[in-house]
Amino acid sequence: MTPLKSRVTVVGSGNWGSVAAKLIASNTLKLTSFHDEVRMWVYEEKLPTGEKLSETINRTNENVKYLPGIKLGKNVVADPDLQNAVKDANMLVFVTPHQFMEGICKRLVGKLRNDAEAISLTKGMEVKREGPCMISSLISEQLGVNCCVLMGANIANEIAMEKFSEATVGYRKDKDKETADKWVQLFNTSYFAVSAVQDVEGVELCGTLKNVVAIGAGLVDGLDMGNNTKAAIMRIGLREMKAFSKLLFPSVKDSTFFESCGVADLITTCLGGRNRKCAEAFARNGGKRSFDELEAEMLQGQKLQGVSTAKEVYEVLKHRGWLELFPLFSTVHEICIGRLPPAAIVEYSEHTPKFSLVGGSAQFF
Amino acid sequence: MTPLKSRVTVVGSGNWGSVAAKLIASNTLKLTSFHDEVRMWVYEEKLPTGEKLSETINRTNENVKYLPGIKLGKNVVADPDLQNAVKDANMLVFVTPHQFMEGICKRLVGKLRNDAEAISLTKGMEVKREGPCMISSLISEQLGVNCCVLMGANIANEIAMEKFSEATVGYRKDKDKETADKWVQLFNTSYFAVSAVQDVEGVELCGTLKNVVAIGAGLVDGLDMGNNTKAAIMRIGLREMKAFSKLLFPSVKDSTFFESCGVADLITTCLGGRNRKCAEAFARNGGKRSFDELEAEMLQGQKLQGVSTAKEVYEVLKHRGWLELFPLFSTVHEICIGRLPPAAIVEYSEHTPKFSLVGGSAQFF
Repeated sequence: MTPLKSRVTVVGSGNWGSVAAKLIASNTLKLTSFHDEVRMWVYEEKLPTGEKLSETINRTNENVKYLPGIKLGKNVVADPDLQNAVKDANMLVFVTPHQFMEGICKRLVGKLRNDAEAISLTKGMEVKREGPCMISSLISEQLGVNCCVLMGANIANEIAMEKFSEATVGYRKDKDKETADKWVQLFNTSYFAVSAVQDVEGVELCGTLKNVVAIGAGLVDGLDMGNNTKAAIMRIGLREMKAFSKLLFPSVKDSTFFESCGVADLITTCLGGRNRKCAEAFARNGGKRSFDELEAEMLQGQKLQGVSTAKEVYEVLKHRGWLELFPLFSTVHEICIGRLPPAAIVEYSEHTPKFSLVGGSAQFF
Repeated sequence: MTPLKSRVTVVGSGNWGSVAAKLIASNTLKLTSFHDEVRMWVYEEKLPTGEKLSETINRTNENVKYLPGIKLGKNVVADPDLQNAVKDANMLVFVTPHQFMEGICKRLVGKLRNDAEAISLTKGMEVKREGPCMISSLISEQLGVNCCVLMGANIANEIAMEKFSEATVGYRKDKDKETADKWVQLFNTSYFAVSAVQDVEGVELCGTLKNVVAIGAGLVDGLDMGNNTKAAIMRIGLREMKAFSKLLFPSVKDSTFFESCGVADLITTCLGGRNRKCAEAFARNGGKRSFDELEAEMLQGQKLQGVSTAKEVYEVLKHRGWLELFPLFSTVHEICIGRLPPAAIVEYSEHTPKFSLVGGSAQFF
């Protein structure tokens, strides 16, 4: 008996969502276990030409607004009706900005197939005082589906141009291994190397916490401290990402931080990326112009994830009495709000006398 | 009873040796367990002024040739007589280019104090077919002393200017922990954060293998592939560094690669550094100008460690039948010798079909 073919829907059609649809669509054509068609839910908008975005995508096979110049594959079908887009799919790829996720999930309650599986590509969940609000958990709990995550050093436009990169799929339990392998099959191409690890929280937290480190790296750039110092800050940042994740979720594995979602995404974000860029400008202005101001000027309406995440992480650290254990995370926040000068990023030893001991002594570091 | 004070001699007075003497000299003044004076063996040479290098150092307190503009500390005493320089010291810091190490050790046999301890700061040991020839082992075996290593993201000139950076001390056995802590004390300052790990081979191998990865990163730069791809190559490189080290020395620890000697040194080397730079030029020239040619033109007589290390590593891999397990290391070598084009660095999947499986399946990865 031939098993039923899987049907895939991508929920979201921004820059990264469109690239995800392209990757997937190239694989569903090749793999016999998937229906060729990839449905992509499009938040409908009218283009300056008067045409609707979904219609343009279906006519031109391009997302002219969010990924112009790239053919998505003829088997990608844009659908502006959320419920219609998901109703036949058993594999759902969530890739909308995180602030819309809860609203979208609410609209989908009771509308999915019973055997539906989900994966989240959305980075930047919120870290609340009582702990992080994982997007994979939100999807799981609201929709009653199993939810994996896919994270990594993934600059959408570079992947769209088929430049080599990697990604990590995180899954929760032993029994989800098979599903994770199916997601790997669906995303993996010759220029996009995907591997799976059993550590959904670790993978997802990497995607959020790296932005705090990128602020630190940007400050070092703005202070003209050189590559030595920048590398040190990135390393300390990676260590704090690991320690923070493991304190919140003891199941988080060290090895996850060697994956694309860990060290590679951190590197990409600290080399390019808007958090790094604004932090560099912040330091060059001696902290005299606020992040809000620089963000408005430099990012054309995009928001700076790192500053708000640093604040959220700080709240958790303070609430739990862990501030001293995380000199980098806490210093980044204190610089962002103007309590410390930008140069404090490389003056740990004065502010946190325990700093050099932490590395050697605390078990989880 | 007060324990006897330790006496330190730095064997070597190049760029990094001079910075090491400066770091140490600032600490011996503060720490009561050390004699203030730090002796530094200088390979004597005549300066264009006619004065001897050692005399100039002792007169000006600067190494005008290898670290101009930086005061070493009045308690640094340059000594051109190798045997005289070491005879009273119980702590010996070896920091000469690796090709001179064996000759220096031979001259020191039987000349050291019975209680002498050593540390090596020299990167770039050779990897012979039968395995790496560790410099710490060379020193240990030739001189009958215990030998630690200190490695990390250490660009000497940046440390000389007291810009924040980090380093890792590697020690061999449980019983050496106390000695390692003493080395940490001797090097650690507010801008140079040192920590110790029990993994001498892991720490030392990092310092050599990163240069092979830096060739890969430079090729990516020269191909204008972007940060995504560069981060992926660095991550895969780190993974191969770890796997190679663990196959050769099962005692090597994963955690070592999170230390300054691991991920941070890799980042520094792949951002700046001469291996990266020449590899970028090599790729921009489409591989048509050899590394030898570019090296001669770009490096003013300095040698490109990465190319020869890649060859040495390749020999080991071939000899042991491991080539397929290390697609990055082997591809770098094959590009260096012109067997593959520069673009092969991002075309693993074609050359090594097992590539994407390796990450998930092989135990040591």
